[in-house]
Amino acid sequence: MNKKLILTFLSSLLCLATFAQQALWGGDNIISPEINPDKSVTFRLKAPKAVTVQITGDCVSTQKMDTPYGVFDVPGAVDMVEKEGGIWEYTTGPLAPELYSYSFIVDGLKMMDPNNVYMIRDVASVTNVFIIEGGRADLYKVNDVPHGTVARRWYDSPTLSKTRRVTIYTPPGYETSGKSYPVLYLLHGMGGDEEAWIALGRTSQILDNLIAQGKAKPMIIVMTNGNVDQEAAPGESSEGFYKPSMQLPRTMEGSMEKSFPDVIRFIDSNYRTVKKKSGRAIAGLSMGGFHSLHISKEYPDMFDYVGLFSAAIVPNENVQSPIYDNLDEKLRVQFSKKPKLYWIAMGKTDFLYQSCVDFRQKLDAGGYDYIYYETEEGHIWKNWRIYLSEFVPMLFK
Amino acid sequence: MNKKLILTFLSSLLCLATFAQQALWGGDNIISPEINPDKSVTFRLKAPKAVTVQITGDCVSTQKMDTPYGVFDVPGAVDMVEKEGGIWEYTTGPLAPELYSYSFIVDGLKMMDPNNVYMIRDVASVTNVFIIEGGRADLYKVNDVPHGTVARRWYDSPTLSKTRRVTIYTPPGYETSGKSYPVLYLLHGMGGDEEAWIALGRTSQILDNLIAQGKAKPMIIVMTNGNVDQEAAPGESSEGFYKPSMQLPRTMEGSMEKSFPDVIRFIDSNYRTVKKKSGRAIAGLSMGGFHSLHISKEYPDMFDYVGLFSAAIVPNENVQSPIYDNLDEKLRVQFSKKPKLYWIAMGKTDFLYQSCVDFRQKLDAGGYDYIYYETEEGHIWKNWRIYLSEFVPMLFK
Repeated sequence: MNKKLILTFLSSLLCLATFAQQALWGGDNIISPEINPDKSVTFRLKAPKAVTVQITGDCVSTQKMDTPYGVFDVPGAVDMVEKEGGIWEYTTGPLAPELYSYSFIVDGLKMMDPNNVYMIRDVASVTNVFIIEGGRADLYKVNDVPHGTVARRWYDSPTLSKTRRVTIYTPPGYETSGKSYPVLYLLHGMGGDEEAWIALGRTSQILDNLIAQGKAKPMIIVMTNGNVDQEAAPGESSEGFYKPSMQLPRTMEGSMEKSFPDVIRFIDSNYRTVKKKSGRAIAGLSMGGFHSLHISKEYPDMFDYVGLFSAAIVPNENVQSPIYDNLDEKLRVQFSKKPKLYWIAMGKTDFLYQSCVDFRQKLDAGGYDYIYYETEEGHIWKNWRIYLSEFVPMLFK
Repeated sequence: MNKKLILTFLSSLLCLATFAQQALWGGDNIISPEINPDKSVTFRLKAPKAVTVQITGDCVSTQKMDTPYGVFDVPGAVDMVEKEGGIWEYTTGPLAPELYSYSFIVDGLKMMDPNNVYMIRDVASVTNVFIIEGGRADLYKVNDVPHGTVARRWYDSPTLSKTRRVTIYTPPGYETSGKSYPVLYLLHGMGGDEEAWIALGRTSQILDNLIAQGKAKPMIIVMTNGNVDQEAAPGESSEGFYKPSMQLPRTMEGSMEKSFPDVIRFIDSNYRTVKKKSGRAIAGLSMGGFHSLHISKEYPDMFDYVGLFSAAIVPNENVQSPIYDNLDEKLRVQFSKKPKLYWIAMGKTDFLYQSCVDFRQKLDAGGYDYIYYETEEGHIWKNWRIYLSEFVPMLFK
């Protein structure tokens, strides 16, 4: 063991690192995205042979997509400009605080930014992400505050004859406090899974931050998988690495609602929970809002707090399930038991907007208490992060 | 709430999904990678404007990289062929069971496969992955067996004046068994973090499978972050989304070893552990092997099982730390206390091979008991998954 050997070892590691990054990955120390002091953002891509390079994402532009089912807001694309050394560049104007996503399009081919390792999967699409600090977006950042624990666990669902994966956030101090905590059950939309709220929704960051600010009570968050034919998110079950798709069977035909008590039973027997209606909330986005509506009315003594985020609030009458029968009567029973909060949030341009208007008219006609919260834009994660951060402070007070 | 509205809603969701996938992402239902019955693999990329498309990865070829510090095996690249509709294709020969990684290179530009959402980050590089089933690779798959829990938690390190993130695997049944479990502390290499062993190392899959087969005792695995200047993996701390790099300061200068009892104290006070030497193992790869060597000799009553995987086994005499002083005497003390297993694994072409030979000579000269395990190839994750799956069955028997 001599000094020469030692120096060689350390140099080798550093050399290998530098060499591998430069030679193999073309990573000429390009910074992308670079967030400038005025909160504009510069994107860079080294592509000397490209003819056209564009960037697409909610950080550069939004365009209207006309479909037979309405007009949707989707990310637009803008051209990047070639600079010295084959590096293409684009700088946005100053951006409002938000978690943004983007991809590059090189000669028509969508690709991720090779200089940005931060990316999130949404169903079958992966995009790069970055955060512009400030305002509400500071809730989406990891800040220097006490952090909760995020666990991926498996539970038995006798109703579905499956073991299933679930993502569970426990608040800072849970493990050692000896106290009991209320629980928010948080449900994803069509095509999502038990990873959606933690990845796209920034749930653990939002909770850590709201709890640290004293704005939310410490609570457990249970993020289930609403696709009852799945044991777990794509790649996390014995089905292996298959290509995810949106068209999942058995998502809105009663099984999720019917099997939900399996989850509650597991959580109540494995965690120190407040095991009563006043200690339980349920909320979901889109399809998860549909599930939250039906689960909460099906078990009217189970949840004192209900959140419908851009919810698909209409029952699916294509499928026969006792779950969806007698909606009006079940709502009457649910509201007669006076839930502490029934919260409906919707974006102005959401393609589900009108069905939400109709549903609120039904609630109004019944004289039922609810709170309605409306935002700009439509059926997008930006809104669901806003809704979560608005909903959570109202719980368990 | 009429039937028309309901049908419209469901159709809209499906249409939006299909439309978005096809129009926005160019996802013409291309399957890539496709694993064929003979275990060859076909890769596809739609890139009608590309002039050359290659694939690089350990699944297509390996080439020698000559550096001043030795010859390294690195993934090679092969040409893909343009077929109908601008779809480029390449089919490998039959592949041996393994977890493989790959990327495309389009006109010189490295990019990920837009049809494969499964990817793993290694320091600053992200590559797509897939698994060829069979043999040892079946340990890397999620199989239909009981699954442990994987938690990301934060603990206090008074020695480092930081709260730090740690990844913890608890075996199936941990939560309800009431039993105490032994603990393996599993350490990453330079540039890695507390995500490395769970993502690249497939630790939870290997443990679930070995435990289900009765080959490993149920145990807790604690995956620490060995970069003492970091609170957490890139993107998981208040430092935000920065570009990861290999050249981390304060990785091999004594602080990790000095602060390690903070981790043990946290685990022993937060989990039902076997709180003695016979209930503790420590192992690590490369820099983590270096840490394991020094931690285990520094605290000779703490670990009965030590694993050095492709370890950087030489002390770093560039830095003054009492941790690295008197190596020979400390090893003498450690081995006089007869650890139950001191296991050294190395690949034949590893650039650290000779330093391992030297270290074994030192152990031989001292008459110390150890087991040496040698594999083909070098300093790569394939070997570290093999070493983990060989090491774990020998523990706590």
